[in-house]
Amino acid sequence: MWVLIFFWLHYAARLCNGGVTSSYIRKPRASVDLPLELFPSPLGFNAPEQVHITQGDRVGRSMIISWVTPIKPYPNEVTYWEDINGKHGHKHKISAKITSYRYYNYTSGFIHHATVRRLKYDTKYIYELGKHNTTRRFHFTTPPQVGPDVPYTFGVMGDLGQTYDSNQTFEHYVANRKGQAVLFLGDLSYADDYEFHDNRRWDSWAKFVEKSVAYQPWIWTAGNHELDYAPEIEENTPFKPYMHRYHVPYKASQSTSPLWYSIKRASAYIIVLSSYSAYGTYTPQYNWLQQELPKVNRAETPWLIVLLHSPWYNSNNYHYMEGESMRVMFESWFVQNKVDLVFAGHVHSYERSERISNTKYNITNNLGTPMKDASAPVYITIGDGGNIEGLANNFSEPQPSYSAFREASFGHAILEIKNRTHAFYSWYRNHENEPIAADSTWFYNRYWYPHEEPSSTKN
Amino acid sequence: MWVLIFFWLHYAARLCNGGVTSSYIRKPRASVDLPLELFPSPLGFNAPEQVHITQGDRVGRSMIISWVTPIKPYPNEVTYWEDINGKHGHKHKISAKITSYRYYNYTSGFIHHATVRRLKYDTKYIYELGKHNTTRRFHFTTPPQVGPDVPYTFGVMGDLGQTYDSNQTFEHYVANRKGQAVLFLGDLSYADDYEFHDNRRWDSWAKFVEKSVAYQPWIWTAGNHELDYAPEIEENTPFKPYMHRYHVPYKASQSTSPLWYSIKRASAYIIVLSSYSAYGTYTPQYNWLQQELPKVNRAETPWLIVLLHSPWYNSNNYHYMEGESMRVMFESWFVQNKVDLVFAGHVHSYERSERISNTKYNITNNLGTPMKDASAPVYITIGDGGNIEGLANNFSEPQPSYSAFREASFGHAILEIKNRTHAFYSWYRNHENEPIAADSTWFYNRYWYPHEEPSSTKN
Repeated sequence: MWVLIFFWLHYAARLCNGGVTSSYIRKPRASVDLPLELFPSPLGFNAPEQVHITQGDRVGRSMIISWVTPIKPYPNEVTYWEDINGKHGHKHKISAKITSYRYYNYTSGFIHHATVRRLKYDTKYIYELGKHNTTRRFHFTTPPQVGPDVPYTFGVMGDLGQTYDSNQTFEHYVANRKGQAVLFLGDLSYADDYEFHDNRRWDSWAKFVEKSVAYQPWIWTAGNHELDYAPEIEENTPFKPYMHRYHVPYKASQSTSPLWYSIKRASAYIIVLSSYSAYGTYTPQYNWLQQELPKVNRAETPWLIVLLHSPWYNSNNYHYMEGESMRVMFESWFVQNKVDLVFAGHVHSYERSERISNTKYNITNNLGTPMKDASAPVYITIGDGGNIEGLANNFSEPQPSYSAFREASFGHAILEIKNRTHAFYSWYRNHENEPIAADSTWFYNRYWYPHEEPSSTKN
Repeated sequence: MWVLIFFWLHYAARLCNGGVTSSYIRKPRASVDLPLELFPSPLGFNAPEQVHITQGDRVGRSMIISWVTPIKPYPNEVTYWEDINGKHGHKHKISAKITSYRYYNYTSGFIHHATVRRLKYDTKYIYELGKHNTTRRFHFTTPPQVGPDVPYTFGVMGDLGQTYDSNQTFEHYVANRKGQAVLFLGDLSYADDYEFHDNRRWDSWAKFVEKSVAYQPWIWTAGNHELDYAPEIEENTPFKPYMHRYHVPYKASQSTSPLWYSIKRASAYIIVLSSYSAYGTYTPQYNWLQQELPKVNRAETPWLIVLLHSPWYNSNNYHYMEGESMRVMFESWFVQNKVDLVFAGHVHSYERSERISNTKYNITNNLGTPMKDASAPVYITIGDGGNIEGLANNFSEPQPSYSAFREASFGHAILEIKNRTHAFYSWYRNHENEPIAADSTWFYNRYWYPHEEPSSTKN
């Protein structure tokens, strides 16, 4: 059956142009936030909640462990040990840094950030927070040592929010079990869709995703819903709640802002950029990226992946060309440096581009069309986590030639890096209660194997 | 003689294309900074120095008076009174806010900012700083009440620096005597061209320009040399010296940052933007400008003028297309709102554009060429103040059709608004020891008289 549908889709698309607009039409349904009552705090006075982890250094031997204690700042320690085939290794204990913030009429709990360091590669660790009857135990596995042929599998999600649809996306990702870490493309909680940006929705979101992010690192990108810029209530500091709650190892990559940074993980070099910070010439982000790209050693990390929020190639009428100003600034660098993949969120649908670039334009020469380019990245827009704002189901027609596949559904993706040359990628549509791999393709590494990929396969 | 040269220039240009590349070739000469010794502090212990004023409110009835006391924070008062045909009006006294900052190995003096309010329109005021033997007296004249036919004359300078050439530009402007206020396009002191951004050059620059800016307001725009972003010496806060030293009335225009704001002055509405802050969708500057443009009432202020640092239309190979990313973001708004003039600095030469726009591009339609547009602004690049970095004398060839006149010389300009329909504009080249009006033209107001202007006249 799926094979038939695949052929039909494929055939229908080829009649029009090179790209596929999926004919799958999602049942329209309001995206409603899960009620706050679904996210109670854990039992016990001041029990640690909203636990999340992210990579804490350049190479994956550190982890930032973050949590909130709602009433008192203490206990402030993480206890952690190696899990040796079920036996406990030596126990370590470290303290966190504590922060908190006010936002209009909201006061946050005590937010703890502890960086556990000098971990062994490819090793399972157990960690505990709280004390006595509020003790909570979690675990994670460090990545293998950075190297060119280390297989590693990333989950990919964006614009998740906390609706019933978000829950479906999230549960599908968790059930998939393949992902070892998540590349998150920004727009986390959508608290700002509430009056006064009700920051309790930042708390509930952290509880919502704890089931995954307490056990595997999510790599964070800031989206527009992280801005929380609200001069009408005198909240004029962009990214205030986000930057208090989500710490990233930006200093390890010589960045001076948590909004842009890079990490190495297994065989991947991941660069995170900020669509909502300055990126003009001479600005901090510009200078950083200029110095950053030459540092990438493809013999060590073959896969060069960029995460940002506002897509550069998007054929949806929703947010059309919003990423243009940043594309104009940086696209030629991406092509020169043979970036493999660029993931973006923001548009609440799914789209995968051809390998194209549009870097020859000089105002007067009329060369402003995206062209096939073997050195160019594939751009994937995956802002389809399922948040409260609903689907973006209004694609421009005809489908532009830079667009390879697009579909207005919620979902998540899995990127399986096999070795230095090959990675297998699948985007999973939320289809009623099961995920369906609706867009799957092999990616060939641009540095080691810059051949044209076969047409995508769908099932 | 000049008439002959004018005709020759004109004729030579028409042979090639519509625009004129001036054949004037400036004698090459190193641009060397004036020695620090040329800028002694005024006599007397802790005497006020580096005095400068700028408009302090929305309409010109307030003035921000700023100065530095090098050793002690006091005296901290401004005494000011109306000058009634040489007789003293009632004396007022107000206190300033005091700030100071450290930058690497430099510690600033005490920087005072006092806003004198509720001034009468079109009135001469005298003000005093210091006390006893260090008393220093200055004066300024407030602008006429905001209104559609109020004549007003602005000086225009950018990228001034503090070289012998800067001095020539500055002295020419002062001697011209026509200018009632200065539109300054960013890049003030060039302190950052020194090791550790030697902030004594911020002090010397403020002394250098005091002769004008203590007596008439300069309207400030931030340039890249105001960034002072230097992670190598752990100076990671962009615009730190600039924002401590130069205050602007940003809150009066509902801005949340001194890097973008607007004022009304006489018949002009002046919007200042920041090329080096975030301008992407949803960012503070973007939101502000979106809300700002509909506020402009052309029946009250016919002349809509934008100041920014990095030009959008520049045919010099120096900084070519650096403003593109911001142009892509905002140009359509400028055209929709019939902006009359956009002044930029950054490129160390002079260029005036035709009235053109380039807003039809949509990635796939190949409509990316600047076209004549009666609703579009004229773009003037005037980063030719004469700073330490020298001239940008490498224009792209052939001269693109959007470029009306360009010349690699230092200089300044005078914009004489006559009434709601007409303004006369002259750019003065520094020619040895005298300024030469090398590019003069009438501008017709885009709202009240949107006709095509005559070809420029030169003498």
